[in-house]
Amino acid sequence: MVRLKFSIELHYEIDPPGSDFIFSIHAAKTRHQTVVSESLGISQNLLPNLSTDPYTHTRYLRLQAFAGPLTVRYDATVDISHHTAAPAQIGEVAVANLPGSVLPYIYPSRYCQSDRLHRLAVKEFGHLWQGYSRVQAIRDWVLNRVVFRSNSSTGNTSAVDTLVEEVGVCRDFAHLMIALCRAVNIPARFATGIDFGADPILGPTDFHAYVEVYLGERWYIFDPSGVAIPMGFVRFGTGRDAADTAFATIFGGVRGSAPLMQIEAIPDAKGTLVVPQHVPYALSTDGQWGA
Amino acid sequence: MVRLKFSIELHYEIDPPGSDFIFSIHAAKTRHQTVVSESLGISQNLLPNLSTDPYTHTRYLRLQAFAGPLTVRYDATVDISHHTAAPAQIGEVAVANLPGSVLPYIYPSRYCQSDRLHRLAVKEFGHLWQGYSRVQAIRDWVLNRVVFRSNSSTGNTSAVDTLVEEVGVCRDFAHLMIALCRAVNIPARFATGIDFGADPILGPTDFHAYVEVYLGERWYIFDPSGVAIPMGFVRFGTGRDAADTAFATIFGGVRGSAPLMQIEAIPDAKGTLVVPQHVPYALSTDGQWGA
Amino acid sequence: MVRLKFSIELHYEIDPPGSDFIFSIHAAKTRHQTVVSESLGISQNLLPNLSTDPYTHTRYLRLQAFAGPLTVRYDATVDISHHTAAPAQIGEVAVANLPGSVLPYIYPSRYCQSDRLHRLAVKEFGHLWQGYSRVQAIRDWVLNRVVFRSNSSTGNTSAVDTLVEEVGVCRDFAHLMIALCRAVNIPARFATGIDFGADPILGPTDFHAYVEVYLGERWYIFDPSGVAIPMGFVRFGTGRDAADTAFATIFGGVRGSAPLMQIEAIPDAKGTLVVPQHVPYALSTDGQWGA
Amino acid sequence: MVRLKFSIELHYEIDPPGSDFIFSIHAAKTRHQTVVSESLGISQNLLPNLSTDPYTHTRYLRLQAFAGPLTVRYDATVDISHHTAAPAQIGEVAVANLPGSVLPYIYPSRYCQSDRLHRLAVKEFGHLWQGYSRVQAIRDWVLNRVVFRSNSSTGNTSAVDTLVEEVGVCRDFAHLMIALCRAVNIPARFATGIDFGADPILGPTDFHAYVEVYLGERWYIFDPSGVAIPMGFVRFGTGRDAADTAFATIFGGVRGSAPLMQIEAIPDAKGTLVVPQHVPYALSTDGQWGA
Repeated sequence: MVRLKFSIELHYEIDPPGSDFIFSIHAAKTRHQTVVSESLGISQNLLPNLSTDPYTHTRYLRLQAFAGPLTVRYDATVDISHHTAAPAQIGEVAVANLPGSVLPYIYPSRYCQSDRLHRLAVKEFGHLWQGYSRVQAIRDWVLNRVVFRSNSSTGNTSAVDTLVEEVGVCRDFAHLMIALCRAVNIPARFATGIDFGADPILGPTDFHAYVEVYLGERWYIFDPSGVAIPMGFVRFGTGRDAADTAFATIFGGVRGSAPLMQIEAIPDAKGTLVVPQHVPYALSTDGQWGA
Repeated sequence: MVRLKFSIELHYEIDPPGSDFIFSIHAAKTRHQTVVSESLGISQNLLPNLSTDPYTHTRYLRLQAFAGPLTVRYDATVDISHHTAAPAQIGEVAVANLPGSVLPYIYPSRYCQSDRLHRLAVKEFGHLWQGYSRVQAIRDWVLNRVVFRSNSSTGNTSAVDTLVEEVGVCRDFAHLMIALCRAVNIPARFATGIDFGADPILGPTDFHAYVEVYLGERWYIFDPSGVAIPMGFVRFGTGRDAADTAFATIFGGVRGSAPLMQIEAIPDAKGTLVVPQHVPYALSTDGQWGA
Repeated sequence: MVRLKFSIELHYEIDPPGSDFIFSIHAAKTRHQTVVSESLGISQNLLPNLSTDPYTHTRYLRLQAFAGPLTVRYDATVDISHHTAAPAQIGEVAVANLPGSVLPYIYPSRYCQSDRLHRLAVKEFGHLWQGYSRVQAIRDWVLNRVVFRSNSSTGNTSAVDTLVEEVGVCRDFAHLMIALCRAVNIPARFATGIDFGADPILGPTDFHAYVEVYLGERWYIFDPSGVAIPMGFVRFGTGRDAADTAFATIFGGVRGSAPLMQIEAIPDAKGTLVVPQHVPYALSTDGQWGA
Repeated sequence: MVRLKFSIELHYEIDPPGSDFIFSIHAAKTRHQTVVSESLGISQNLLPNLSTDPYTHTRYLRLQAFAGPLTVRYDATVDISHHTAAPAQIGEVAVANLPGSVLPYIYPSRYCQSDRLHRLAVKEFGHLWQGYSRVQAIRDWVLNRVVFRSNSSTGNTSAVDTLVEEVGVCRDFAHLMIALCRAVNIPARFATGIDFGADPILGPTDFHAYVEVYLGERWYIFDPSGVAIPMGFVRFGTGRDAADTAFATIFGGVRGSAPLMQIEAIPDAKGTLVVPQHVPYALSTDGQWGA
């Protein structure tokens, strides 16, 4: 079991007459991810609206903030007891047998135009054994093809752009991998968390985007950007792509500065310290059928 | 109450080794739409997998078909007892107060890039009263701007393309209206049905795409293409856009011919015949909060 | 020397009040391509405006046609005495040494977004010897990657689309090859002619689009679609891409039917018949420096 | 007559093994724009290759620079004696009557997809009198629709993007205006110079992009971004769009800093000082037929 302690601090300056926010910065509560403790601080006197998506477990915090400065701070300690499995024993699921709740993740979405990549994906990956190793091949293909460069993409950059221009940040790697998976009928979704273990050369700790793929009977974790350590991913939100799970969606005139974030592995209740590391087996923080 | 009787017949020729299908051709069962009778005929000896999305009520039929010819025929008689309301009394809902299940419909999606249309939408519609009439203004703007022309778009055509090129079919009108609604934070979704009442000059009866917008406490019907009669829409599927609710999504090598469809208004159980017509009030086939 | 005899017949129905046309259906007159005889027939009583671009030798026929039916027929017999060279002896030209008239062909154009393909092109072709064989490698890459399928693209389809979707017609193969050449600083242009020698399975004789690349001191012919025989290409127009050299650009409401075309190799003035065939050496119909 | 004195200083740090540059920073020499004096300074010991496009008069400076620092400085004094005309007397030219050298400017180009805007342009501008005032209407439409914001676009931003997103810099205003002109068959081209008279709030003196439109028998100046004073435009390059006339096109690994530029109106040879101002008549620096 991994115990991670982290904090996120967000600062905004809001124009009159105020602004609505939807944040996705709370740790999800899943069968394999437990929130040991958490606290939320808001600098304005607001009534937060916190709701949980029944299927994805994503927790959405909605605020109606006044004009002026706003600080939102979230602290949490989370225990992750991964479901693990041997890659060679994890197969794909035929479209006909997918749970209904998984179906939306085989369709194209805003940033993942899988419909346009069908021919390419079949040519590159259509002949491979239909299981975890095929998804790993897609992940490696993306990682080898795309160059990581900070600030190389915008909010409008999609999987097709990244395929063509071969440069991006973690969000773009994730979108391209998702689009390629869906193009060969493998359900894939966008997940957000923190980049535990990322090389400091990439800058201070930041939000991270990665991929979850539905295989066997649950969602498994993949990190196509290769910059972080999957075993250290605290899951916040999941969705069809970045449109659904931005850490902050803002409705109004607002200026923000870079988030301040920290994360560390700490000893668990028994005093055992497990530091996340790269492992050769498949990881999931979901229960069976996404429950 | 409106009683509609319709049939849909689909013909395919499937390449070896067979193909998976996901159909969305069943009438949805909602608080205001009742399926009086229905029957499904499949020419191959297959076990159909029929599931219902718990939130949208969309019914998905999945088939694993063999190579060779396949005919799917669906017949149904449906009663629609619309929820109606006076447009002047239907307001919008602030983002902070939207039901969690409605949130996905304010985000951009594959064919509805609302994120790119924010400035345009605010300029055109930002100053209007925030209610049904604003949505009607968006609908009229789309109808006035875009020209209906059969076969003028492809499966890759999106709201941005339609905005630029100003030509399309019902699907394209719907995508552009949805994108503009979301760009001013109004939840909007894509709905499919049959084009009851469409001008025969447009060809034989066909599938139709229209829009549902979340206002007050439920989803209301709009027809931005203006070619059909909303009171006669039998709802099949709803989703974020056409990616989610194609009448047939096909996984494999398949050739199809044009669907054969018929629809007519018939007398209800009491022998009363109500023929759908254009009405000056708002229509919904949903219960409160989408239930 | 190759002697080719061909005819092109175009039929239009023009809406009131008439329409302007720009045709590019005349054989270019170059140092290596001689027009032995030609005739132009126009069914309306019009004054044709025929001009020649001084650099590309493209001949533009402009007509101001009346409403009603219009038939344009062009017949010609052309001698082509190719400049030939051994591929291994043809090098690229450094940007600093390109003739000024060639410079426009290293910049991106409407359908050839070479600026977006720089990283991909450098990765795939940057390490190769800088000469004819590198261009041949680009041509082969495009041919291997893209599938030829009639009616698979539209007038809006660009090199980026073809790279992503991997399907197209000769125009699309040409655009992608041109974009990749320019992305590694090799001047490339779009050329039009007739598809001499194309497999009849692709339909009746039609216009063809191919590529000319500036190497050594002249423009060499490449056929990325692989469907025709370069030695049999009668050159009509050249330009930056299909935007410049459509066989017909139409300004007004017009309906047209498929062009009727025929081409055959015939004996030359000395009675010798040379039938175009695939050859292992480089071909050009241009003089030095494009003169 | 206006006499303008300006300087441009460019600094680069070039990676091994060196880099090719194509600059377009020399004042064009036209019938109405005379270079009184000019000087070019290059910090490396290089042989500059300066060529002039015979039709556009654009002067291209090509350098093959070594790795290390490079400074290029250009100083010039230029006399502009504008051709002026009354807008009401300037008509458009029918496609059939355009000089051959003007034809390329009615076709779409990399950043000006006029082919996609035909329907919109005809609807908005098709009914207007075909002359200078129609072009002015297009210019005003663009100016009213698009918001000027520094750093709001990238090198990939095109007229279609600017139409959709309604924000940009001078380059984007120019591209959209050009695309709309061409969409109604009016030849339009991209021109570059310095932003004489721009509001200092927009930052220090910088390169400027504007539009030239072919009307009557010559190219007239328009400034769709509205940030500068057309009478003060020293013309450097013209082309189909920004792809052709970047002030610097760089082939290799190079880092650059912001250009240092200055421009001022000075007394002419007779001691008369004319300061550029907004004027109610049409301006051109071209001779008849672009000569």
